[in-house]
Amino acid sequence: MEKFIDKINSAEDLRKLNYKEKKQYAEELREYILDIVSKNGGHLASNLGVVELTLALHSVFNLPEDKIIWDVGHQTYVHKILTGRKEQMKTLRQLNGIAGFPKTTESECDCFNTGHSSTSISVALGMARTRDIRKEKHSVVAVIGDGALTGGMALEALNDAGFSNTNIIVILNDNEMSISKNVGGISRFLSRVRTKKFYTKSNNYVKKAVAKIPKFGDFIIRHTRKLKYSIKQLMIPNMMFEDMGFKYMGPIDGHDIEKLESYFKTAKQLLDGPILIHVVTKKGKGYKPAEENPDKFHGIGSFNLETGESLTPKKKDYSKAFGEKLVELAEKNEKIVAVTAAMKDGTGLTEFSKRFPNRFFDIGIAEQHAIGMAAGMAKDGMIPVVPIYSSFYQRGYDQVIHDVCIQKLPVVLCVDRAGIVGNDGETHQGILDLSFFNVVPNLNIMAPKDFIELGDMLEFAINLNEPVVIRYPRGGEGDYKFEKHEPIEKGKAEIIEEGKDITIVAIGKMVDRAMKVSEILKEKNIEAEVINARFLKPIDEKTIVSSISKTKNVITIEDNSVEGGLGTVVSELIVKNNLQNIKMKKLGYPDEFVKHASTGEIEKLYGLDAEAIAKSCI
Amino acid sequence: MEKFIDKINSAEDLRKLNYKEKKQYAEELREYILDIVSKNGGHLASNLGVVELTLALHSVFNLPEDKIIWDVGHQTYVHKILTGRKEQMKTLRQLNGIAGFPKTTESECDCFNTGHSSTSISVALGMARTRDIRKEKHSVVAVIGDGALTGGMALEALNDAGFSNTNIIVILNDNEMSISKNVGGISRFLSRVRTKKFYTKSNNYVKKAVAKIPKFGDFIIRHTRKLKYSIKQLMIPNMMFEDMGFKYMGPIDGHDIEKLESYFKTAKQLLDGPILIHVVTKKGKGYKPAEENPDKFHGIGSFNLETGESLTPKKKDYSKAFGEKLVELAEKNEKIVAVTAAMKDGTGLTEFSKRFPNRFFDIGIAEQHAIGMAAGMAKDGMIPVVPIYSSFYQRGYDQVIHDVCIQKLPVVLCVDRAGIVGNDGETHQGILDLSFFNVVPNLNIMAPKDFIELGDMLEFAINLNEPVVIRYPRGGEGDYKFEKHEPIEKGKAEIIEEGKDITIVAIGKMVDRAMKVSEILKEKNIEAEVINARFLKPIDEKTIVSSISKTKNVITIEDNSVEGGLGTVVSELIVKNNLQNIKMKKLGYPDEFVKHASTGEIEKLYGLDAEAIAKSCI
Repeated sequence: MEKFIDKINSAEDLRKLNYKEKKQYAEELREYILDIVSKNGGHLASNLGVVELTLALHSVFNLPEDKIIWDVGHQTYVHKILTGRKEQMKTLRQLNGIAGFPKTTESECDCFNTGHSSTSISVALGMARTRDIRKEKHSVVAVIGDGALTGGMALEALNDAGFSNTNIIVILNDNEMSISKNVGGISRFLSRVRTKKFYTKSNNYVKKAVAKIPKFGDFIIRHTRKLKYSIKQLMIPNMMFEDMGFKYMGPIDGHDIEKLESYFKTAKQLLDGPILIHVVTKKGKGYKPAEENPDKFHGIGSFNLETGESLTPKKKDYSKAFGEKLVELAEKNEKIVAVTAAMKDGTGLTEFSKRFPNRFFDIGIAEQHAIGMAAGMAKDGMIPVVPIYSSFYQRGYDQVIHDVCIQKLPVVLCVDRAGIVGNDGETHQGILDLSFFNVVPNLNIMAPKDFIELGDMLEFAINLNEPVVIRYPRGGEGDYKFEKHEPIEKGKAEIIEEGKDITIVAIGKMVDRAMKVSEILKEKNIEAEVINARFLKPIDEKTIVSSISKTKNVITIEDNSVEGGLGTVVSELIVKNNLQNIKMKKLGYPDEFVKHASTGEIEKLYGLDAEAIAKSCI
Repeated sequence: MEKFIDKINSAEDLRKLNYKEKKQYAEELREYILDIVSKNGGHLASNLGVVELTLALHSVFNLPEDKIIWDVGHQTYVHKILTGRKEQMKTLRQLNGIAGFPKTTESECDCFNTGHSSTSISVALGMARTRDIRKEKHSVVAVIGDGALTGGMALEALNDAGFSNTNIIVILNDNEMSISKNVGGISRFLSRVRTKKFYTKSNNYVKKAVAKIPKFGDFIIRHTRKLKYSIKQLMIPNMMFEDMGFKYMGPIDGHDIEKLESYFKTAKQLLDGPILIHVVTKKGKGYKPAEENPDKFHGIGSFNLETGESLTPKKKDYSKAFGEKLVELAEKNEKIVAVTAAMKDGTGLTEFSKRFPNRFFDIGIAEQHAIGMAAGMAKDGMIPVVPIYSSFYQRGYDQVIHDVCIQKLPVVLCVDRAGIVGNDGETHQGILDLSFFNVVPNLNIMAPKDFIELGDMLEFAINLNEPVVIRYPRGGEGDYKFEKHEPIEKGKAEIIEEGKDITIVAIGKMVDRAMKVSEILKEKNIEAEVINARFLKPIDEKTIVSSISKTKNVITIEDNSVEGGLGTVVSELIVKNNLQNIKMKKLGYPDEFVKHASTGEIEKLYGLDAEAIAKSCI
């Protein structure tokens, strides 16, 4: 029998199926996605969880006229398959291939690019208000997970939407998870709602009973704690969201296509304000290893489909090195606390959280609050260590400036996934942090050349009693084995290799690259002086200027934009010190957003592999 | 009779008074504050509103052992008077005087610096968790307004706090206002709560009535819309916050000291989780002009105490010039919409909001959402103009990068209060925006020399179809009358005056300064070439480099940090173009946080008045 997956190429085709056929199609889609992701890597658990939800959405809403904004956007594989990209999905996340997130450049049906969490309700409201100004009639739908819902931006938007009479549909995809297990009052509230799933069944009985009570509404009042609780329990399914001004529908089984469609149809017809539909789904649905371990299958590399075992060799990475060192330091120093924003595993804090549960705080997808809370802790004498991915630190920029740096509080801001991250693409590359942090007063900024130096820097930062950024990349250290590890001194660079012909100033993971470049140059009888900057701020002016004065030729290498990072700082040193007749080159990423591909491919593309750099030195 | 204000110097003195005396003291405090603010300017309405609240807090909690974190912090005048700064308050907001916001450097009783909105719950939670780790026992209190509560950071913290069992007290100071009239679902929710003020009175009656109904809890269920509504109305006082995990107390009359103290004492003794006390106060309380017009008396200059009339001559300012031009443009272009985050009056949008109510969106204190929503509108074809103060744009940094610039959407980001703002001090100076925006790809950045150029830039931006920043200062234009206003061209600077001895590159309000410097230099027979950069990005490389090549001597002047702004960009041009033997000076603010004083005083202090600049040119 021909499979549905081979026949169906659009939402129009999909709508011709009956529910039984759609169910079958859903299973085929799961297989298709499993096949691709097991080869290319990608976001698995979330996509398996929304197969039926996506089919129901595409059955009821007409894209691109109607708009669906996918929060975060990593759960759009079925959506992409249904909107003309079935074959291309095989190039998922690869160079020049289909992106892992919605891209307006790929399809009209991707109505907005996402990647970071908690943006969808704001965007939906903007689009809905635009529709209303123009007196158009289409639907605008935001699909947001329960994890993303607790991000400040989503809550701000919920508050605004609830007050407006703007007709938007928010689909709360409640899978009891953000990247890690969810936390927070809203999460607990939702889990109470889920336990009331069957309230509709008792509806008829209750209707009759209620009818018998005269002036019923007047009597209900907070009376005893117990009474209040029971009233609340019964009221819960709509309370919080209706208080905010939303119509609430749900909770609904997110794998029941028929029910989903009927709710969506109803919502589509209600045209008098914001609606929230509470859908309960299971992450990893249909693939046992992912159902049992959705964390592991959130974002993964290639894996064995039979066993679920990873095919990417598990090398130690910077996050793990960070986590190990932090545990070691925390054993000796009781002031150390760790704060993370739903990135416990990703940032290497799992072991810490087990060893020091009372000094570990995962506060959910909420970078602003994470940094503000850390500042409060630092003010009262703790030493908070806050690992957050580089591109998400953009969310806490004001808190770094306003809450940490103005008061010069000793918060250790660990910028994980700094530099190019690869296949997640534009929204996740961390190539701006050196630049946007460099302009913040009172901040120290470091980047290590290898794991050992990361440990040394962490220890240094913890004892510094000032705000510090330490940034390090996704993945492991380079191949070059550094023999020397001089103690970290504030504002001191390290000359790794002396030379007379050219100064190479590198920072972080690019120090490894600089050593390789130096080797290539040696073959061409060029002696490079390799400086590991260690600190971007304060920069080691003396060491760098004296080397440049000697060689009259300098290149800077950084895993960052060339605007405002190491290259900029060194340029300024040249001008400030009035150095004359200097050849200067800044290597890094140009002033643009860098698309998805493997890190190695991207580096090659931008001339940052050792061979290309060596060439540009000559 | 001696006044209480003369006798009371500390919370200890305060606690000796009975309630009647405290009431009298409250009135004296109002007079004292009115006297100071009418002379020095400052935040009036909010401080008059919290007199009793502050007295009750200081009566019940022991500072500095107990911690009070004041959200925003502009409402701390009574707190400062009670903590050893009564006399110094006469220097409020002046150079070397008392700051208008809490400063840990002023007093141990200021336990954390605030200034921006919505940070207090995060900080309180950090301090409370620190206390618990150390097994200490003091209270931690966050005082937050209903406006600030809708900021994403506060909501993130509320969510985290509600899930924790951490004992913190959040005092919701509900005055029905942020800076402007409040908006949003939470605000409407609170106003419904306020209308239920008298629910406690009917309590006894209800208790009896309820007791008569068998199996009461089982019957209550969502039945008809009307029934549900009446249930909700009665339940409202605690629902939303209790759903989040807080104990809720209130609403209480925020001007009844006795009642406030009794609630605070109860809260202090409850040690099993977060508590929210809902206090209703009146902004401007006790001073009729401020009660009637709290917006005007939010932050003001000196005024006549009798009449409430401003004593600072009302000069047209950049915000007004912006607002007028926007109305003019919006008349001709239906795509223009305006979005602001509770800064309607401050950013000059009042007239626009009246003329185009369906194209105007004040979405509350929620910068992230404002920019995200604008991005959604831009994607669907509108041209959103988003005026936000410079230091608050830090809150929306990720949205500018992730939601606007990656997709290159035509959002016009108007950075009001850019540069030094003066008496509000460190937290409000807008001297980082040129730097942190310059590193964002796809962004155009402009700053006008006067009102006319602001209008021209706004018109240019609206037609550009790309992301644009226009930044302009607090206050009015300079004294220099510019005669020429050449059309704006992307990336084109303007040579205002030709000269051969020195190149002065200035941007924004500093172009006026440059002209004055040029006049001073003329007297010394130095001919300056004055370049109005207009664009920081893209920078007019050709014009600037060719001038520097000629004069071999350049200074840059900007109302911004010298790290990463115009000076940095020009330095990089010198290196990139390999210009030799150039004298270069960057003028602006050094890499530090700039304290409060008048703008003129600050400029003098940092050598940015015309005379000082002229000297540094020689």
